[in-house]
Amino acid sequence: MSIENSVKELGRQAREASRIIAASTVATRNQALLAMRDAIADNRNDLMAANAEDLAAGVKSGLAPALLDRLELNVERIASLMVSLEQVAALPDPVGAIDGVRTMDSGIRVGKMRVPLGVIGIVYESRPNVTVEAASLCLKAGNAAILRGGSEAINSNLALGRYIQEGLAVAGLPAAATQVVATTDRAVVDALIRLSDYVDMVIPRGGKGLIERISGAATVPVLKHLDGICHVYIDAQACPDRAQAITLNAKTHRYGTCNTLETLLVDEAAIALLPPIADALAAAGVELRGCPKARAASASVGVAATEADWHAEYLAPILAIRVVAGVDGAMTHIAEYSSGHTESIVTENHGTAMRFLREVDSSSVMINASTRFADGFEYGLGAEIGISTDKLHARGPVGLEGLTSSKYVVFGDGHVRQ
Amino acid sequence: MSIENSVKELGRQAREASRIIAASTVATRNQALLAMRDAIADNRNDLMAANAEDLAAGVKSGLAPALLDRLELNVERIASLMVSLEQVAALPDPVGAIDGVRTMDSGIRVGKMRVPLGVIGIVYESRPNVTVEAASLCLKAGNAAILRGGSEAINSNLALGRYIQEGLAVAGLPAAATQVVATTDRAVVDALIRLSDYVDMVIPRGGKGLIERISGAATVPVLKHLDGICHVYIDAQACPDRAQAITLNAKTHRYGTCNTLETLLVDEAAIALLPPIADALAAAGVELRGCPKARAASASVGVAATEADWHAEYLAPILAIRVVAGVDGAMTHIAEYSSGHTESIVTENHGTAMRFLREVDSSSVMINASTRFADGFEYGLGAEIGISTDKLHARGPVGLEGLTSSKYVVFGDGHVRQ
Repeated sequence: MSIENSVKELGRQAREASRIIAASTVATRNQALLAMRDAIADNRNDLMAANAEDLAAGVKSGLAPALLDRLELNVERIASLMVSLEQVAALPDPVGAIDGVRTMDSGIRVGKMRVPLGVIGIVYESRPNVTVEAASLCLKAGNAAILRGGSEAINSNLALGRYIQEGLAVAGLPAAATQVVATTDRAVVDALIRLSDYVDMVIPRGGKGLIERISGAATVPVLKHLDGICHVYIDAQACPDRAQAITLNAKTHRYGTCNTLETLLVDEAAIALLPPIADALAAAGVELRGCPKARAASASVGVAATEADWHAEYLAPILAIRVVAGVDGAMTHIAEYSSGHTESIVTENHGTAMRFLREVDSSSVMINASTRFADGFEYGLGAEIGISTDKLHARGPVGLEGLTSSKYVVFGDGHVRQ
Repeated sequence: MSIENSVKELGRQAREASRIIAASTVATRNQALLAMRDAIADNRNDLMAANAEDLAAGVKSGLAPALLDRLELNVERIASLMVSLEQVAALPDPVGAIDGVRTMDSGIRVGKMRVPLGVIGIVYESRPNVTVEAASLCLKAGNAAILRGGSEAINSNLALGRYIQEGLAVAGLPAAATQVVATTDRAVVDALIRLSDYVDMVIPRGGKGLIERISGAATVPVLKHLDGICHVYIDAQACPDRAQAITLNAKTHRYGTCNTLETLLVDEAAIALLPPIADALAAAGVELRGCPKARAASASVGVAATEADWHAEYLAPILAIRVVAGVDGAMTHIAEYSSGHTESIVTENHGTAMRFLREVDSSSVMINASTRFADGFEYGLGAEIGISTDKLHARGPVGLEGLTSSKYVVFGDGHVRQ
């Protein structure tokens, strides 16, 4: 069978299984999740042996140490996989609720029911724990899933796939509900993202290259997350202590995350606040690249920023700083350079804060808070499958609800249309 | 300037205008809508003259009478355009509301704000009234719009575009907020649907050919509506009167709409209900095409159905009829052949009704009601921009909310992440 046909067959089976999963009770799905945990516990040694094969192959092929670290499944990480399955089982059922039922003039009652999406494809890179996280969230939301991990983790992923399917079997659910693709050929991905008849959504999890490649070629809808070029704007009426605490936290709490601050905007009327903040950032080891006004204000802003800096997602101890003309200047800069992920204003002025909140077009807009809060767990979603910088379907941190759809339900008593 | 560059320039201007529209108050947008109505009233004769040019060109090029009828703007239709503008102005503001604000353990308060989508492209065919309907709904929801109508209505559309921009000017809003494309070249559409940097969503309104062409080539998200192959299932425990009334209404109320019944499914245990219903349908002039069991049950089922009939959206006085084995048989048929638009069950059994409601994966699922109710106005949406058979973003009849997005809003008091 050609790769295209075998992916089509995977899709057909997933679609069939998705009907059974959608009709299952949440008790059954939770039973499967807990049985997956037990299957992992029972097969811990085999799982570590499979992972050791991947690690050995990775060493042989010269994988970078950081990638080898991401690939590794040690006792601790396996335990945390098991805990994550328990946590997903404990989450409330995201589907089945009927909301907003109203009686119309015609007499029919109309509402909306939250329902599973159907079949979800997940394409990810080296971390094998994504296999379990993605599988569990898709199942909890009543969906079938097709998982396609990186070739360097293939043995670990296939082992996890077996334990996942053991868990499904314990609950009497079909194995095709969660399929780990055994072929590492890249053509599998190309076929999967064009399988509109059988796949309802594809979620790429990985680097920018992966996400751009998939978004560019997919005919199936893609839940995507591109850059996080996040801004903090310090307004003329900012509280100096808050401005400093928020800037420091947003930049230095973690450098490699998408909700990390990358460009600091300072109102020209708040320029006096910049020097102590710049000194503190520099003391924390952050390289500061500023516009001429920022450099004139503080010797700690050691590098002249270029146009490229306003577009940069550094993911590193580097910060761009620009002095702007009030909240309008800040919003103009953000409209031009932001990736639409997260922006925060520091101000004590209510009107300015509310204008920023209303007018900035990003997935999270904050007042007097660190951009680092833009996260599914911090927002109380209970889980996070990704952070969407799209505006349709799901925007910002995406929890279980992003894996669902809705349908209209109509209750009549023999009603016909006049 | 090449067509691609001039469309890009349209998009750039629309994006710029969208920021101003998004920041405007609903009072300003309503003022613009009512000023558009006044501009149409003041220029009624010029509008009819522009329309007469289109009609003359249509006659000359041999347009079919039905298309000429759709193209015509007479006194009555212009009056109804004016009323529709008043109605849209009277609708509640779909954006700005902040919902679900909760205080997290960290102390930040998190909610979701409903916001405009940004820039919406509308591609439509011959009816010039779509220019006004689409423009008014996009503006009401705080969006900029780029409207590209059919070449046969170009003079009418450009005239309406002028009155729309007069209305925007009265309210102090930028003309680029609603642009009617002056070029009739098809390359405009090809460029528009790939303008991801400037256009947030494209809505095609027209025949299946148009929608498939656009969905296949677009890189911008498309709100699409394909076929309506709608089913009514008559269960063993159906009330005979309701079964007959609903079937007759769903099939014969209007033949050409997407929520019209196309295939009737009858439980083999309810076969006794079929003959009187078939007789009534035949008496109403509907050609009946049935499976062997349906034909054996009623002489009114005059034609043998083929596989193609189960896939057919007739939009005509023709109905396919199939006898199935209970609700499971009905749901299997629906899963295989339905377009996912609207399905209805006729039954007095609560458990069967609720299973059908939960398990059928269509944008509207009904109990004891005619499929003809699947409509934005019947659902109380106040307006309808289309009916989506997609599962992401918007599903089923789409009102103003389908033209909006949401963003997370975070209220802190200097909060930083631990």
